[in-house]
Amino acid sequence: MTRLFVIATSALALAGCTTVDASSVASTPAPAIGDHKPAPDTMRWLYASGEAAGASIQTWRQIADYAIAVAQRRTVPQSVPLGLPDADGGIGTPSCLRADGSAKPFAAVFDVDETVLLNTGYEYWQAYSGKSYDPGEWKQWADDGAGIAQPVPGAVTGLRRLREAGITVIFNTNRNSDTAAGTAAAIEATGTGPAVHLENLFLRGDDAMGSRKDGRRARIAESYCVIAMAGDNLGDFADIFNAEDDAIAARRAMVARGTYARLWGDGWFLMPNPVYGAWQKGTVGEVFPPETRWKPEPGDAPAIMEGQ
Amino acid sequence: MTRLFVIATSALALAGCTTVDASSVASTPAPAIGDHKPAPDTMRWLYASGEAAGASIQTWRQIADYAIAVAQRRTVPQSVPLGLPDADGGIGTPSCLRADGSAKPFAAVFDVDETVLLNTGYEYWQAYSGKSYDPGEWKQWADDGAGIAQPVPGAVTGLRRLREAGITVIFNTNRNSDTAAGTAAAIEATGTGPAVHLENLFLRGDDAMGSRKDGRRARIAESYCVIAMAGDNLGDFADIFNAEDDAIAARRAMVARGTYARLWGDGWFLMPNPVYGAWQKGTVGEVFPPETRWKPEPGDAPAIMEGQ
Repeated sequence: MTRLFVIATSALALAGCTTVDASSVASTPAPAIGDHKPAPDTMRWLYASGEAAGASIQTWRQIADYAIAVAQRRTVPQSVPLGLPDADGGIGTPSCLRADGSAKPFAAVFDVDETVLLNTGYEYWQAYSGKSYDPGEWKQWADDGAGIAQPVPGAVTGLRRLREAGITVIFNTNRNSDTAAGTAAAIEATGTGPAVHLENLFLRGDDAMGSRKDGRRARIAESYCVIAMAGDNLGDFADIFNAEDDAIAARRAMVARGTYARLWGDGWFLMPNPVYGAWQKGTVGEVFPPETRWKPEPGDAPAIMEGQ
Repeated sequence: MTRLFVIATSALALAGCTTVDASSVASTPAPAIGDHKPAPDTMRWLYASGEAAGASIQTWRQIADYAIAVAQRRTVPQSVPLGLPDADGGIGTPSCLRADGSAKPFAAVFDVDETVLLNTGYEYWQAYSGKSYDPGEWKQWADDGAGIAQPVPGAVTGLRRLREAGITVIFNTNRNSDTAAGTAAAIEATGTGPAVHLENLFLRGDDAMGSRKDGRRARIAESYCVIAMAGDNLGDFADIFNAEDDAIAARRAMVARGTYARLWGDGWFLMPNPVYGAWQKGTVGEVFPPETRWKPEPGDAPAIMEGQ
């Protein structure tokens, strides 16, 4: 019974329908503040669905299986491509050997937000309040969220397995460096630490490249052989993917075909996050190129209803 | 998918909802029809982002690597748990041996929509028109979508690798059985076929269990040793996960902890789909249980803005 009402409410909202009490409903938009309004589908999926839990558990298993297998080989492996431009303008692969010919230790590099941690507290506040992103509130959350932020399902086990196999776990996040203490505390409170600033935790502001992570990746690769990377944003792998601001189809094609497609699941690992990200733009016409579109035959199509 | 939308349609009818024309809508927000309005974030992520392409490529690689490794072992493997209730009310694991003691051939079982195919055409129409689910329009799309529906990135390569390794590819979809010809054509047009109804393609209506797939899984397991399953909905693995209609937190906990958590990436594989599904319900308060919530200190919180 509960489910029927919940779905009915969602369906009514989708269809823009009026209820019997049309006079009050038609003039009153959905309440902007509170726990009782429908959650956005993006948050329902990422923070509350069993589907998203299954997806992240399987990917953390894939990361650990992959990196441990690489670490157990008898030969020095190649680093994964790290987003450092090579001579051809592509993505370079640093050496896993030091200048003296000795082997660098293994590391796996991870984004933090929605890769290791779920920012349930801050996202709850956005959903509850109806507010958009506010840098001051985000800093409060980054400073104080320890104990509320949840681990991404699978991350605790995955990171423990990596560390037990002798692989150094390194975090590379675009949280600001002035939140380093709070970020380390939030990581450790979920059981995915330790995290120590400038040892295995790097943040935006640690260098002069802003939110671009290639410089931090280069710094890590000076000391480590990076055998796996994971994140929820293409910028967690190479800055080049976010260089073209408005080319939605080109950005997808670049990672889904050709040189880089072979890396997904083979050194690079993507944690699904439909709540926010660099992909969060585009009109209906941009998301669906002409060859992907369809419309029903008019004979079977009732009049289009208003609203959405 | 279809099951949820049918319920939504019924709910509209129960609620006495009527279609209204533009003049009776007091406050009309963004234009409801057209290519130029912002696409929903769910569709931006699934159909247009490089992130979603990377996620599905890595999972299809994981499926093929896993199933091929199992098939190459010298011993008869166990089937993956299939959603058939066992004596304890849990999920049973059928035998991979026939009654005469011989080994059944290997199979991998896949959902179709948003697991093998992206329904870009129908979803474009929903985004363009602002309409909610319409069974007549969906049937048109299921009948006629061949050549417009896109393969999920990674599916063509993944299914080819499975078949080359001697593993039978079987599709188990909740499209209606009266769309079998169109569904097979859509699968084959993306390069992920062949698909032949009642041989390796099973649909809703092939038995009397409606959208519940356990019966079709049992039928498949009579002839095959099922070594991998993939889908975008928990119902693609076992009906039990969708039995509790209103327990959002319990549904996630059931798959993320305990008995079933170990199966993700180890026989069961989840394709991320934030656009629609059985998870698509819940208020802000249900999606974020009390222990996951946070609010900023009032001193730093500007006045709450209306809308979202």
